[in-house]
Amino acid sequence: MYSKLKLISGHANLPLAEEVASYVGVPLTDIELFKFSNDESFVKINENVRGADVFIIQPTCRPVNDNLIDLLIIIDALKRASAQRINCVIPYYGYARSDKKDQPRVPITAKLVADLLTVAGANRVVTVDLHAEQIQGFFSIPVDHLYAIPIFAKYFQNMKLENPVVVSPDSGGANRARALAKRLNCGLAIGDKRRVENIDKTELLNIIGDVTDKTAILYDDIIDTGNSLIKVADVLKTKNVKNIYAACTHGVLSGSAVKNINNSYIEKLFITNTVPLTEEAASCTKIVQLSLADMLARAIKKIHTEESLSVLFN
Amino acid sequence: MYSKLKLISGHANLPLAEEVASYVGVPLTDIELFKFSNDESFVKINENVRGADVFIIQPTCRPVNDNLIDLLIIIDALKRASAQRINCVIPYYGYARSDKKDQPRVPITAKLVADLLTVAGANRVVTVDLHAEQIQGFFSIPVDHLYAIPIFAKYFQNMKLENPVVVSPDSGGANRARALAKRLNCGLAIGDKRRVENIDKTELLNIIGDVTDKTAILYDDIIDTGNSLIKVADVLKTKNVKNIYAACTHGVLSGSAVKNINNSYIEKLFITNTVPLTEEAASCTKIVQLSLADMLARAIKKIHTEESLSVLFN
Amino acid sequence: MYSKLKLISGHANLPLAEEVASYVGVPLTDIELFKFSNDESFVKINENVRGADVFIIQPTCRPVNDNLIDLLIIIDALKRASAQRINCVIPYYGYARSDKKDQPRVPITAKLVADLLTVAGANRVVTVDLHAEQIQGFFSIPVDHLYAIPIFAKYFQNMKLENPVVVSPDSGGANRARALAKRLNCGLAIGDKRRVENIDKTELLNIIGDVTDKTAILYDDIIDTGNSLIKVADVLKTKNVKNIYAACTHGVLSGSAVKNINNSYIEKLFITNTVPLTEEAASCTKIVQLSLADMLARAIKKIHTEESLSVLFN
Amino acid sequence: MYSKLKLISGHANLPLAEEVASYVGVPLTDIELFKFSNDESFVKINENVRGADVFIIQPTCRPVNDNLIDLLIIIDALKRASAQRINCVIPYYGYARSDKKDQPRVPITAKLVADLLTVAGANRVVTVDLHAEQIQGFFSIPVDHLYAIPIFAKYFQNMKLENPVVVSPDSGGANRARALAKRLNCGLAIGDKRRVENIDKTELLNIIGDVTDKTAILYDDIIDTGNSLIKVADVLKTKNVKNIYAACTHGVLSGSAVKNINNSYIEKLFITNTVPLTEEAASCTKIVQLSLADMLARAIKKIHTEESLSVLFN
Amino acid sequence: MYSKLKLISGHANLPLAEEVASYVGVPLTDIELFKFSNDESFVKINENVRGADVFIIQPTCRPVNDNLIDLLIIIDALKRASAQRINCVIPYYGYARSDKKDQPRVPITAKLVADLLTVAGANRVVTVDLHAEQIQGFFSIPVDHLYAIPIFAKYFQNMKLENPVVVSPDSGGANRARALAKRLNCGLAIGDKRRVENIDKTELLNIIGDVTDKTAILYDDIIDTGNSLIKVADVLKTKNVKNIYAACTHGVLSGSAVKNINNSYIEKLFITNTVPLTEEAASCTKIVQLSLADMLARAIKKIHTEESLSVLFN
Amino acid sequence: MYSKLKLISGHANLPLAEEVASYVGVPLTDIELFKFSNDESFVKINENVRGADVFIIQPTCRPVNDNLIDLLIIIDALKRASAQRINCVIPYYGYARSDKKDQPRVPITAKLVADLLTVAGANRVVTVDLHAEQIQGFFSIPVDHLYAIPIFAKYFQNMKLENPVVVSPDSGGANRARALAKRLNCGLAIGDKRRVENIDKTELLNIIGDVTDKTAILYDDIIDTGNSLIKVADVLKTKNVKNIYAACTHGVLSGSAVKNINNSYIEKLFITNTVPLTEEAASCTKIVQLSLADMLARAIKKIHTEESLSVLFN
Repeated sequence: MYSKLKLISGHANLPLAEEVASYVGVPLTDIELFKFSNDESFVKINENVRGADVFIIQPTCRPVNDNLIDLLIIIDALKRASAQRINCVIPYYGYARSDKKDQPRVPITAKLVADLLTVAGANRVVTVDLHAEQIQGFFSIPVDHLYAIPIFAKYFQNMKLENPVVVSPDSGGANRARALAKRLNCGLAIGDKRRVENIDKTELLNIIGDVTDKTAILYDDIIDTGNSLIKVADVLKTKNVKNIYAACTHGVLSGSAVKNINNSYIEKLFITNTVPLTEEAASCTKIVQLSLADMLARAIKKIHTEESLSVLFN
Repeated sequence: MYSKLKLISGHANLPLAEEVASYVGVPLTDIELFKFSNDESFVKINENVRGADVFIIQPTCRPVNDNLIDLLIIIDALKRASAQRINCVIPYYGYARSDKKDQPRVPITAKLVADLLTVAGANRVVTVDLHAEQIQGFFSIPVDHLYAIPIFAKYFQNMKLENPVVVSPDSGGANRARALAKRLNCGLAIGDKRRVENIDKTELLNIIGDVTDKTAILYDDIIDTGNSLIKVADVLKTKNVKNIYAACTHGVLSGSAVKNINNSYIEKLFITNTVPLTEEAASCTKIVQLSLADMLARAIKKIHTEESLSVLFN
Repeated sequence: MYSKLKLISGHANLPLAEEVASYVGVPLTDIELFKFSNDESFVKINENVRGADVFIIQPTCRPVNDNLIDLLIIIDALKRASAQRINCVIPYYGYARSDKKDQPRVPITAKLVADLLTVAGANRVVTVDLHAEQIQGFFSIPVDHLYAIPIFAKYFQNMKLENPVVVSPDSGGANRARALAKRLNCGLAIGDKRRVENIDKTELLNIIGDVTDKTAILYDDIIDTGNSLIKVADVLKTKNVKNIYAACTHGVLSGSAVKNINNSYIEKLFITNTVPLTEEAASCTKIVQLSLADMLARAIKKIHTEESLSVLFN
Repeated sequence: MYSKLKLISGHANLPLAEEVASYVGVPLTDIELFKFSNDESFVKINENVRGADVFIIQPTCRPVNDNLIDLLIIIDALKRASAQRINCVIPYYGYARSDKKDQPRVPITAKLVADLLTVAGANRVVTVDLHAEQIQGFFSIPVDHLYAIPIFAKYFQNMKLENPVVVSPDSGGANRARALAKRLNCGLAIGDKRRVENIDKTELLNIIGDVTDKTAILYDDIIDTGNSLIKVADVLKTKNVKNIYAACTHGVLSGSAVKNINNSYIEKLFITNTVPLTEEAASCTKIVQLSLADMLARAIKKIHTEESLSVLFN
Repeated sequence: MYSKLKLISGHANLPLAEEVASYVGVPLTDIELFKFSNDESFVKINENVRGADVFIIQPTCRPVNDNLIDLLIIIDALKRASAQRINCVIPYYGYARSDKKDQPRVPITAKLVADLLTVAGANRVVTVDLHAEQIQGFFSIPVDHLYAIPIFAKYFQNMKLENPVVVSPDSGGANRARALAKRLNCGLAIGDKRRVENIDKTELLNIIGDVTDKTAILYDDIIDTGNSLIKVADVLKTKNVKNIYAACTHGVLSGSAVKNINNSYIEKLFITNTVPLTEEAASCTKIVQLSLADMLARAIKKIHTEESLSVLFN
Repeated sequence: MYSKLKLISGHANLPLAEEVASYVGVPLTDIELFKFSNDESFVKINENVRGADVFIIQPTCRPVNDNLIDLLIIIDALKRASAQRINCVIPYYGYARSDKKDQPRVPITAKLVADLLTVAGANRVVTVDLHAEQIQGFFSIPVDHLYAIPIFAKYFQNMKLENPVVVSPDSGGANRARALAKRLNCGLAIGDKRRVENIDKTELLNIIGDVTDKTAILYDDIIDTGNSLIKVADVLKTKNVKNIYAACTHGVLSGSAVKNINNSYIEKLFITNTVPLTEEAASCTKIVQLSLADMLARAIKKIHTEESLSVLFN
């Protein structure tokens, strides 16, 4: 139905976009995207996009607000340039943790972002490992939600870990950890920590579940400061765990995360390339990046040709 | 700002509405609400509601679709009758578990319901213990989300339970159970079961966390068939648990739930009155119903007079 | 333009959907549609529908609210599954008689339903003999409105009735009866009854127009309890009418309608298959069901291939 | 709730607006409303309307499109000037007869007008005797629908007509005629004419119902060219009717209507002042205009003070 | 993508539509468009338009409100007739000068018109020389904005004018005049007049810039009454200008514009055919009309085949 | 009507907000507004705002995207916290220059921003000296547009400048400069420069109008890099201008603007406080900042009490 497939990348993760483009077999569309000296973002699409099925690849990672606004202005430019269908490929969906009103008078920014994308003119979102699956319901347009878990599971299976246990750093991630435990056919444990107020201070209390003499895989969707993971690793260490690995889809790695991981009991941290690595992270030997480009490229091709994506989930 | 406060009840939970009305000190507005012989619902509001601040009390419990449509036609009638503000008090939000697309080509009915309420003309939703807090973000209108947990916590504190532990029946409810554990300052355990396909068959695997010699409080937002809770209770029994209680905000109690609970190791099931009790449930001596009417009435009065609800959460 | 035509049936009228499917020459799409034990409806589409031109066949007949909600969740599932165009074939449009605010503070449920369908994601409605043609204007999406009158007219012409007269049971249906009278090139009469309040009690006053020694065809869009038709038949009997037939597109036949018709002066009641027959109705020898499946199938095929439907109206 | 009541009149019916204003006891707000020499309409509101509850009095009578656009730009100006509530008093709702798609590829202009009013910023419509009551459902904003029938009924009762019968000029108006007949407690008859294509040629066939030796009251919502009424009067004359009166809410009186009525068997034509009279009509001794100003003023005051309008319908 | 291209013309500028149609090579679609005797507009499309890519050619020139409403009802008819894409070709966009709130409590009618078109169902606007380019931003649908300047520039280059200077009649048009000056590589001057209140009285003050001994080209987007242009010409005459020409895209020419131009120092007035000429204007030897039909036809074909329009701007 | 007036300030211009607050006589509402370490913005309103009439003071100056997103999340938080009316006071409206599609495939970001504000929940915008007045029409909500020109005019009148002339740096600003010239009752001149491509390189050509021996006031809405103003000043210097002043409402002053102004022929640059001064700008003796706080405070008070703002424009 859609004759022309176009791929556009913002500035958020050009290496990923280029890798996806090479898998899709379509070059990135030529655009100008920059900031004027007055700090305002500007975009110009340099190729005709009338009637095209356009996929914009732009995770809303750091600098979050700039990447988000850039995505919105690209959408607006495409809409006014008569693109047929505007698909936003947002492998990392920023503000996903602001998904509920758990304090008085706070925003639900993840919903706000959904509304911003929609009002700008987006026709579809393609994303990976949303912090809460319910965020799909923030949208009225179709959302294709992909998962990194098959890639992680396959990787760990190949590692032939001895007596593994998947550990969720907190009770909120128990379900996600359980999904990996199920794939690896192994046990589950949960860190019972308390997060205090709006700052990142956490206080670990306990590990619920049996971890002794096991290989722990700390599993979460996002690694941000890494503090909670590291503290769980500290406690795991006291429990006679054999090895401690960590796996997180989105390697946000803010603040002194890389340094702290280097100094922690985490032996290896597996992340994907939804968020580009800082130089510091790229040179950290503990960090292993697995690419989602092939999966994203397959999703884009199937969406373009109106085929089912279900095969991607196995 | 709003001179007239009006309370309207659909058929879903008239006893709750009447109890709320008596706390608010305002009689229920006279309406006709019935089905024609052709099965179509009809409503007529028998009092002037122009400029009124109307609160409709209607949980969307069984019969779910009838109660939902009735709520929508009440909203439509109020909108066309020039009500100033239409507040939907939905203590139990049906379809809340259909909050994500976790299989191919399924609806997100909880979002659909949010859109239906909004397009009908609702200006606000007041609800209790949503299955996922993210459902607040399905709405663009304000949602006042209330919690039964202070009522349960106070009740259990008064019971002076010996060595309690809060048990979540599955990993998805770990966070909710943890919140009660925190209030009771006690431990946490989690049932690691697997739900298979779209039918209610579950297969319990294990209890993660220490429960031996403790008083277990199984805690969940909804008790539906009760099967998963009962199976967790079965396993708890094998772990030398002393007493087994259960607490669930929404007593849906479908199928043979009451009978099964009677035959289970659960000694007492504490529920609230968001959903009306069947006769069978009302006569079940294991089931204790705690009323939320006072809390709802206080919320309604504060919303009407534009005061903060925060005080209700402590 | 639309490469894939998909037909989906809800539970409302599976025999009609299957008959339509066989005329269209496309099998019904495999779906799971059921209620959980908690009374909530659930649907899963078991075939890929990306880019498809989907027609959902679901009259909103009894159980009205269940069938309506089922239709809405099917639409939501299709929208989120990236269907290209979602066409709702609703041969019988429930709530059609709630099409105006003829009393204070009542809803206009037929408009509410139109808004619910639209917000869920419907792109088109195909329907038959709306109670008021103005209901088309409740929609901003295209409505293809089909008519059973050519089928009834042809049928009566083939019967070669002697000296027929078309009788509208009330003044509100005069226009519809006149259209049939025009097709049959015969006279028109009207029952002048009064409906009292919101209950189905009616009080017949008179027959306006000449019916003596004629073959009366009572004609209406919907036969519900049948009371008003039967009372008009009673009066017609006193006017030396020779034969009394009745024809109604939508055989709702609620309450004791079938029994009452059996005991009435109506000799034959002709209805279509927009609403499925109850067992009692199916075994009633006075009731003759004419199928609209061929007409609906032709409409669906023409809509799919973007041809004019005008030919269907002659 | 609404501190300031403002009345604004467009050009459509200034005498009515002034009469309403005097009943309400509030002067018409000073505005400039004119056409530039380039034919574009312009409005400027010369008084502060911030926070005001504004009622615009503007029937959409001839010149229809100019009056409609003027109404829309007044709404837009009020919206941008921060009026609190914009109520459109449209005693005659133009395009009301374009309320369904009864031919292929025609618009439903009455719905289009509803959408235009809503998108411009209208918050409410107050209107009189809509051609079809279903037009209320074209709106999602509240519609207060008033009726001239109590005024006509009272007038005819005072005339103490001998043996009256209400005659609908066609089957489409049977229901409306029946409502007057019910109020006058008299008989009903119906003209069975055929309208051909889109031009005003009609062909009268017959009078259904008994009219001999009676006083006929032809009753319709709109008198436009008057042709159909006059032709029914011609036939009534042949049926030994004693007197022929006509009553129509909206005296559109287009083309040579006044001349033709003067030459017809209609003895008196009763209309209201929803549409202003042409000079020719005003000097026609057969035409009697009844004022709705008092009723409209009472409605406006009740809407402003949030009282029920029900009392106006008796 | 769009298999069927359909061209529809309203009454606003049939000669232009026919010329465009002949360039496109597609006949105008057969429609009925007229006013009933009650002054209401009506349209019927006489050809199937399902799935078609329809271009409606209708400038909103005098009679402005009639042409605008006609355009809206054509859009509504097309939407309900299942057209695939509705493109509004509005070469002259009426109400364009009402594009801001430069006085208290006035409308922004150009935005209102944009909203009316959108709510009626327009999918795209194609227009020429908007009074302010910002009007594009009044729309959320794509706007293809074409320019007459290449046609004027080429025409003047062919005239090989001696020492030309482009004169803007006022400071608001300075930018537009500058664009022509740039294309002609010549100087720029500006009339510094004052417009007083809402009537067309203007008071010229001065010419800013050097015009002595030059050939003046007065340049504006619209010539309406022509008063301001004529007054600038009067002043230019006093400045020893050699020849005075005027060029304006939209020849509205209201009031006694043609007569006044004939009596003015303007030697030739070049306009395009976005607005049809009155007979008086057509017979005025000073007025030269340049056709945009070829440009519009090329734009329509490119839009239909999803090609870039950029080539049209050089 | 609105009982509680609340003022909220984002981070964009706290000194202005505080000055406004002191004029209004209402303290700034206590909020927490910060970035998490992962770069995501967060806000929490620490006071009850139910039913309040809230004014958020947040120009969208540098960092533009952060300030814009912060404004949107404050709006979202207020909407969900049941504020009655959300007024956005945006003295400097960023992205205002992206107000048209003057190149192929560029966004109209000023319209996008309007849509983002509206979808987030804004009920009103209060702003100062929009780059184009048409931006008011990008909104459907009321916009109160204030002007700095009375403040500048009064200031210059007090300076008793000798033989002043207002100079617009380019033809696009001619209208704005003319408005100041009219207030100062003096002449007008215009710089005729060419801006090349999307970078800030400009090439001055000429000064149109008489400036010799006069006091030049360069006047524009925004001073960004200052390059165009400085180049016009260079040329003015060659024309025997006596003194060169500049006045611009919005002192964006990006890049090396301050340094360049210091080195330029501009003797004084008058700006307002819509944008906060950098330290460098604050210490620049050529730059004089005039405060709009009093005007903004008066506007806020009048909006709150529903009084006309017209008095502010004189």
